[in-house]
Amino acid sequence: MSEATSWVRKDLLGIAELSAEEIRLVLDTADTFREVSERPIKKVPTLRGKTVVNLFFEPSTRTRSSFEIAEKRLSADSLNFSSSGSALSKGESLVDTALNLEAMAPDLVVVRHRHPGAPHLLARRLESGVINAGDGAHEHPTQALLDAYTIRRRKGRISGLTVAIIGDIEHSRVVRSNVHLLTKLGAHVRLAGPRTMMPVGVEGLGAEVVYTIAEAVTDADVVMMLRIQLERQSRTLFPSTQEYFSVFGLTRERLTAAKEDVIIMHPGPMNRGVEIASEVADGPYSVILEQVANGVAVRMAVLYLLSGARREAA
Amino acid sequence: MSEATSWVRKDLLGIAELSAEEIRLVLDTADTFREVSERPIKKVPTLRGKTVVNLFFEPSTRTRSSFEIAEKRLSADSLNFSSSGSALSKGESLVDTALNLEAMAPDLVVVRHRHPGAPHLLARRLESGVINAGDGAHEHPTQALLDAYTIRRRKGRISGLTVAIIGDIEHSRVVRSNVHLLTKLGAHVRLAGPRTMMPVGVEGLGAEVVYTIAEAVTDADVVMMLRIQLERQSRTLFPSTQEYFSVFGLTRERLTAAKEDVIIMHPGPMNRGVEIASEVADGPYSVILEQVANGVAVRMAVLYLLSGARREAA
Amino acid sequence: MSEATSWVRKDLLGIAELSAEEIRLVLDTADTFREVSERPIKKVPTLRGKTVVNLFFEPSTRTRSSFEIAEKRLSADSLNFSSSGSALSKGESLVDTALNLEAMAPDLVVVRHRHPGAPHLLARRLESGVINAGDGAHEHPTQALLDAYTIRRRKGRISGLTVAIIGDIEHSRVVRSNVHLLTKLGAHVRLAGPRTMMPVGVEGLGAEVVYTIAEAVTDADVVMMLRIQLERQSRTLFPSTQEYFSVFGLTRERLTAAKEDVIIMHPGPMNRGVEIASEVADGPYSVILEQVANGVAVRMAVLYLLSGARREAA
Repeated sequence: MSEATSWVRKDLLGIAELSAEEIRLVLDTADTFREVSERPIKKVPTLRGKTVVNLFFEPSTRTRSSFEIAEKRLSADSLNFSSSGSALSKGESLVDTALNLEAMAPDLVVVRHRHPGAPHLLARRLESGVINAGDGAHEHPTQALLDAYTIRRRKGRISGLTVAIIGDIEHSRVVRSNVHLLTKLGAHVRLAGPRTMMPVGVEGLGAEVVYTIAEAVTDADVVMMLRIQLERQSRTLFPSTQEYFSVFGLTRERLTAAKEDVIIMHPGPMNRGVEIASEVADGPYSVILEQVANGVAVRMAVLYLLSGARREAA
Repeated sequence: MSEATSWVRKDLLGIAELSAEEIRLVLDTADTFREVSERPIKKVPTLRGKTVVNLFFEPSTRTRSSFEIAEKRLSADSLNFSSSGSALSKGESLVDTALNLEAMAPDLVVVRHRHPGAPHLLARRLESGVINAGDGAHEHPTQALLDAYTIRRRKGRISGLTVAIIGDIEHSRVVRSNVHLLTKLGAHVRLAGPRTMMPVGVEGLGAEVVYTIAEAVTDADVVMMLRIQLERQSRTLFPSTQEYFSVFGLTRERLTAAKEDVIIMHPGPMNRGVEIASEVADGPYSVILEQVANGVAVRMAVLYLLSGARREAA
Repeated sequence: MSEATSWVRKDLLGIAELSAEEIRLVLDTADTFREVSERPIKKVPTLRGKTVVNLFFEPSTRTRSSFEIAEKRLSADSLNFSSSGSALSKGESLVDTALNLEAMAPDLVVVRHRHPGAPHLLARRLESGVINAGDGAHEHPTQALLDAYTIRRRKGRISGLTVAIIGDIEHSRVVRSNVHLLTKLGAHVRLAGPRTMMPVGVEGLGAEVVYTIAEAVTDADVVMMLRIQLERQSRTLFPSTQEYFSVFGLTRERLTAAKEDVIIMHPGPMNRGVEIASEVADGPYSVILEQVANGVAVRMAVLYLLSGARREAA
């Protein structure tokens, strides 16, 4: 672990505000937690007696469970809230709900909310550390960190790599956090998708923008496919899922233009046969399940750094 | 802790049946648990290996989470049930559900139910201790205990204080439990609200009854505002929320008639701008978030006393 | 515990594939865990640091809570998933959901699903051990094991007993698992129910088939009543619940034909006055709540055996 950098932030709200050194500190710290999940006894006492509130205002299986497993492997006490059955349905504001939870003295609050900036609002009002687990189409910092961790473990570095991100660029918090992170660490990022899924001002993101999957994949070290949110967009943004697959789906043939040791990533849940062919998702270049495994280690690192355990131990 | 009194009840069903000594024992015990939530390691092994079932047949964020945090800080194993997805939806009776849970050997059952008396029914049938976490408009004993604890910490005493409780008196279990408790400990309780929200026979509760907020607040040591259940009553019991606020809302101006060191309480969740102005809720006299923090300590005390840990340790 | 047999299966999917020796090993192991739930400290460190995922795609109170309590009393970390709010509602397949969970390195996955064979599908794809907690009308192996454990504790043996199982034979996973188990251990099983509730080919199950409750109960050592799934069948399979009770309901009078020391079982939740009279359900021959208590011990045994703790300790 780099001893030159130490963590001073109370919250993890986005990648935009992190320095390259802070990002590296998270990734280095994740290395030390990764092997905990490979032990017969998958538990360390690091956060014993700490309380972590998981406050999910949007449904989530993988992110919530990844945090919950990370918390339990650190011996923290987890408390789960979802929007249904909560005081929110009685008309209480987000801030009042959070202040009330904070009065019970949690150490950390993990929040997912459909409104961009909701975690930032909470962070300003709460003394507890706040971790953004996804805010609308804005940021999803722990996803970008686990993606970077997965790339670094596979490639040994991030700097100098070409990373293609393909799909619905406009509505993706994963893209936004990844572009910030990968460019800070020196990667070349290439964004591709239908014109109807490109945000206005996409050129200003600091990434190359292309409009065909062939251009996107060519000589890429990493190809990251995005989930098409069928429940939201299929009727308006493209004619059909078959049409989408025929134009932007990742197939084995299209992959031949990439680097020989390309790795394929996807934040999940996948739509097989829409944005990615099953043979690619399950094929030898896929690191999709490694991303999930690494997610636990990265979230353990974030929880640990934010909990102040590091400072107390120092 | 007063050694003269010891806890002998299996259940905590209401304040009505408690003696002043029993109430004081809970408050004194809460004092010993309060600092646990202020430690870096917020956990004691007191209830390790005990199982507590949280059986909530009505939605609840704050009460359920307060109990769950209290249980975890005592190292108990918590099990959460809500009515959705339960055998109740398969037509099983409340008693059969509870007997089945009891066969799994829990130590304590925390129950919230919309029917007054549901916890009492369970208490008669179960060997486990039963804690009433709110039964219809009947009682909510841990809320009254945390309110009393908050008053005693702020004022040093309860006896001789004037406590104004303002709002929907008829439908409030908080009022019923608080009137019992505060009068047992020697406070003068004053109830105020629209005539449409006063129960028949309110004079028999042992409290002064007034019909304006001005009378209620005058020379009060404590002003406790009740939540207006907008989802249930707004159309029938008062013309509009603005109208309610103009007649019974607690504003800074109205507060000037109270004692100089008045404290403002609210069981939450608040309707800002309906029963209470934001500047009062967030102002210097408000102890609303202290109530929440104290709730964890009081529930730790109740869980501890009922679990028999005290008797076993003696 | 029989030292001659050791557990080698990764999964517990059904009773059909178990040998009599394997069944006895589970029952013997349950004996060693039964007293844990009777201690003041109801917890052993056996599965500390193990992660168990409870993946329930059908609502369940008693089975899920029995597993969850068993996990906690073994000191495992439990993670609960239900179908609502999961990625399944985003169109992800069962296998992808499970592979993603597995990437987080759980040790065991407990799964309930409405499709027969769903746990088998997962077991083939996952390295983690899979426990079938009920798959459609196919198998419910831990229910049959706890039933057998209850019979053995009460009768001292299973071999040679006559066990009558009465009700909706066709739609019951409990029947299927119980017939397999009881015949393997040498009991004589008698099935009874309306002809509309008997599966095609019922004679091939290896049990005696009768069509009146009087025949079923005569000289029975054990009478096991099945739940009538009122929400599903009442309109089509029998005229009314009163009619069902008058023809197949277990009453005190009907019970007089059974052995003097007969025991009455029911997997719950009961429909009192439909398949069983309250005076029988609550009467001296009933072991229905013992079944629930024994369920925790049997599930602790299964979790322990499958977790590999036994092999590691050996």
